[in-house]
Amino acid sequence: MIATHAHDAGETVIGQRIGGGSMPRRIVIVGCGVSGTTAAFHARKIDRTAKIVLLGDEALPEYSRCGLPYAFSHVVPSLEALIGYDEAFYEQMNRIDLRLSWKVNRIVVEKQTVEAVRTNDASTETLQYDALILTTGARPSIVPVPGADLKGVFTIRTMNDIQRLTDHLTENNAKRVAIIGAGLTGSEMAEALLQRGVTVIQAEIVPEILPVILDPDMASIIRTRAEEHGVEYHLNSTLEEIVGRNGKVSGVRISGEEYGVDAVIVAVRVKPNTELAKNAGIVLGESGGIKTDERMATSASSVYAAGDCIETYDRITRRNVFFQLATTAVRQALVAGTNAAGGNAKYPGSTGVTTVKLFGLEIASFGPTTTASEEIGIHPISVRITGSTRLPYYPGGKELTVKLLADSEDGRLLGAQLVGEEGATLRANFASIAGHLGLSVEQFEQIETCYSPPLAPVWDPVTIAAQALLRRLQTSRGAKSQKLTTVED
Amino acid sequence: MIATHAHDAGETVIGQRIGGGSMPRRIVIVGCGVSGTTAAFHARKIDRTAKIVLLGDEALPEYSRCGLPYAFSHVVPSLEALIGYDEAFYEQMNRIDLRLSWKVNRIVVEKQTVEAVRTNDASTETLQYDALILTTGARPSIVPVPGADLKGVFTIRTMNDIQRLTDHLTENNAKRVAIIGAGLTGSEMAEALLQRGVTVIQAEIVPEILPVILDPDMASIIRTRAEEHGVEYHLNSTLEEIVGRNGKVSGVRISGEEYGVDAVIVAVRVKPNTELAKNAGIVLGESGGIKTDERMATSASSVYAAGDCIETYDRITRRNVFFQLATTAVRQALVAGTNAAGGNAKYPGSTGVTTVKLFGLEIASFGPTTTASEEIGIHPISVRITGSTRLPYYPGGKELTVKLLADSEDGRLLGAQLVGEEGATLRANFASIAGHLGLSVEQFEQIETCYSPPLAPVWDPVTIAAQALLRRLQTSRGAKSQKLTTVED
Repeated sequence: MIATHAHDAGETVIGQRIGGGSMPRRIVIVGCGVSGTTAAFHARKIDRTAKIVLLGDEALPEYSRCGLPYAFSHVVPSLEALIGYDEAFYEQMNRIDLRLSWKVNRIVVEKQTVEAVRTNDASTETLQYDALILTTGARPSIVPVPGADLKGVFTIRTMNDIQRLTDHLTENNAKRVAIIGAGLTGSEMAEALLQRGVTVIQAEIVPEILPVILDPDMASIIRTRAEEHGVEYHLNSTLEEIVGRNGKVSGVRISGEEYGVDAVIVAVRVKPNTELAKNAGIVLGESGGIKTDERMATSASSVYAAGDCIETYDRITRRNVFFQLATTAVRQALVAGTNAAGGNAKYPGSTGVTTVKLFGLEIASFGPTTTASEEIGIHPISVRITGSTRLPYYPGGKELTVKLLADSEDGRLLGAQLVGEEGATLRANFASIAGHLGLSVEQFEQIETCYSPPLAPVWDPVTIAAQALLRRLQTSRGAKSQKLTTVED
Repeated sequence: MIATHAHDAGETVIGQRIGGGSMPRRIVIVGCGVSGTTAAFHARKIDRTAKIVLLGDEALPEYSRCGLPYAFSHVVPSLEALIGYDEAFYEQMNRIDLRLSWKVNRIVVEKQTVEAVRTNDASTETLQYDALILTTGARPSIVPVPGADLKGVFTIRTMNDIQRLTDHLTENNAKRVAIIGAGLTGSEMAEALLQRGVTVIQAEIVPEILPVILDPDMASIIRTRAEEHGVEYHLNSTLEEIVGRNGKVSGVRISGEEYGVDAVIVAVRVKPNTELAKNAGIVLGESGGIKTDERMATSASSVYAAGDCIETYDRITRRNVFFQLATTAVRQALVAGTNAAGGNAKYPGSTGVTTVKLFGLEIASFGPTTTASEEIGIHPISVRITGSTRLPYYPGGKELTVKLLADSEDGRLLGAQLVGEEGATLRANFASIAGHLGLSVEQFEQIETCYSPPLAPVWDPVTIAAQALLRRLQTSRGAKSQKLTTVED
């Protein structure tokens, strides 16, 4: 590996290459989303002299993908507002060689080279690296149904996607849109469309919305609210065909019924972009994402990876999974950038703590759902309570529904799911520490929370849920030992 | 001790006395604040047949003391709204013998008796107990200055105090009030008075407000806001005299200057009510509160104590201190009530996590201030950052200032102080878990938080502060080892 000691007396130069004399380290980063940008800035912090090249295949520097639905709905005034930093911040402030509209075609790990092509003039360049960081991200799936190639079918991943959708809706004076999938992006887009005065029908293949982050009993609270706002759900339903007229979307057939719509948004699944890595012989994990160790190093020497293109260690299920979370991506990118620049950092894994706001409700969760737990052989015990964010006498308190899951085997806190008009997001963080550390419900229940009439109740709803869950665990154990006794008798 | 097994075949009776046959356990609770009430209800949960007597010296059942400033300001519609449960809930629903306006004069631990007198008719009764719980609370101090006995001098502890203050202000058409002390209660009352159209001058003996929960650099944010709302502070200032005319307050002399006021609120310190315990020979701690073990047992057999009358184990400073927090009190009371009824529960100590809302700012903290740390030989390293509760592009984000303290010796998180228009309270809970568990800043920094544009930023301000604190700790250690090397050379 690379040393972090200075070679020149009298000057502290961090991260020069061993034996490299005054040759600066060459760091190449493929992908200019939030992971690539974060990796670049952190590499720069560690190594002030490195030559850092950041290649992005879009025409714009990094912007907030999570902000796209809010720019679409005009809550955020413009798409441009989502751009993190202007090019000068990369180039002048951080001396990062930012190359936009460059596509990487090949990585040759034996030669430590990257072959790139500039998309506007097809000029090519082979870049030599001392360290390579793959932040190639992910892309949405297109469902393989008839009509999927019609004009008016969209996925939501890039600023360009939103611009094209906006143009299509305007040009066609669109009144109604079908959204396929009721996960995070699909649900955010449903609300954004309603805010723009477009009606929404939404199809979800499983029996309830938001199936990745919530159990059905929790998700139904949000569905009810969304229905009040006008979303027409088709649950347990499959998109069979996108119907067209003159090459344009005119309807969808969902589980045998046809509905007239002016556009279709497919928001079903995001897949990691791993082709470059795979073709270079870099090992992928069983889940399909690039495999890394805790230093974010891949199987190839001096090649790191971070963000949506990799699989992440889930501290709760103790498996490698896709989280596709910006918070996870930036932490991995910080580690990858640091290590690529000769530092030494580790990424400990994630609890997958997630939040989303829909129709005035804060929704947050960490850990597997009940169904997801059972699928991997974890048997959860859970409770659901509805409390308030204030004492009853203080005006303005909001209902907060909290579901907590425990592993029935070892009693540890397995997950939390929270829905309410306020206070869900930050309470999910609170609970997820327990998940991160592997605390038992018994340990978690003992942690005090602060109280003041205008701000929080004496017993926090999360604590009330933890107390109830602890009683249920104790009853369950009592029943188990009772059962054992009976058997032995 | 008392067993928790059932003696009667066919019926599960938890907590009957050994050898007591069918005699119900007699539990006496002295003090009907939130601790006494909580202890009573939890004792009832554990022992369904116990005879539980709850003695309160006020005429009303338990009400929220913390809510008093909000009933005074009319944010809460009435004083009566602060009452937790009506008498029927105690008597009929929980079979608790609630005795209001009863004062306990003596405890004889050798005989396991309590001598009480009913204040309205002076009738007396001696109660025999199998278990006694002391929840005698605390009382505010009166400053020993000339004029302290004038009409128009108030402390804020009981509903009666608020009623008398309200009557006095109305009867005297009060325009201006002096508050002595700028801690939590004094500050809440300052805001409440301004909301009622009364101007406020506030004296604090130390150089900055809220000295128990915040460092001066953090408290100054709130002071500036309060001054904008009209509070006239006199810091570093001592009340020397309360000036009167015709037996009524007409002014105060603070550090040599006289100010005309219509009333004085003394909000300087709360002291534990320990006379009963002390006279009964029950051991007090060095800090002056009743000493208990983690089962909330006092030095006297079968006597438990909880809440503001005891000293609490501070998990951060590892000392016994006064927290005077409702959240701490109810947890101790749950443990005391459970154990008094034959159960087995433990109280693990507190981080003292505290929150208060003042002039539109959420304020929250845990752990000792920098000054308090130094006084007990802990040398903190700290950082202060100001972040936002949203990404810059999303409208409505609020500034949040976060100060984190670490123990420079072992690198653990020692405290957090947060001030902002939103998100301080629940983030203090988040940070205080680290304090509760003794996590290092390095461990704490690794814990992910959730993000969504309308709800929280990618890097939480608490995480940003933790990252900065970690760098400062590492620099400090580098400097220390450098220093050691130099000495050894």
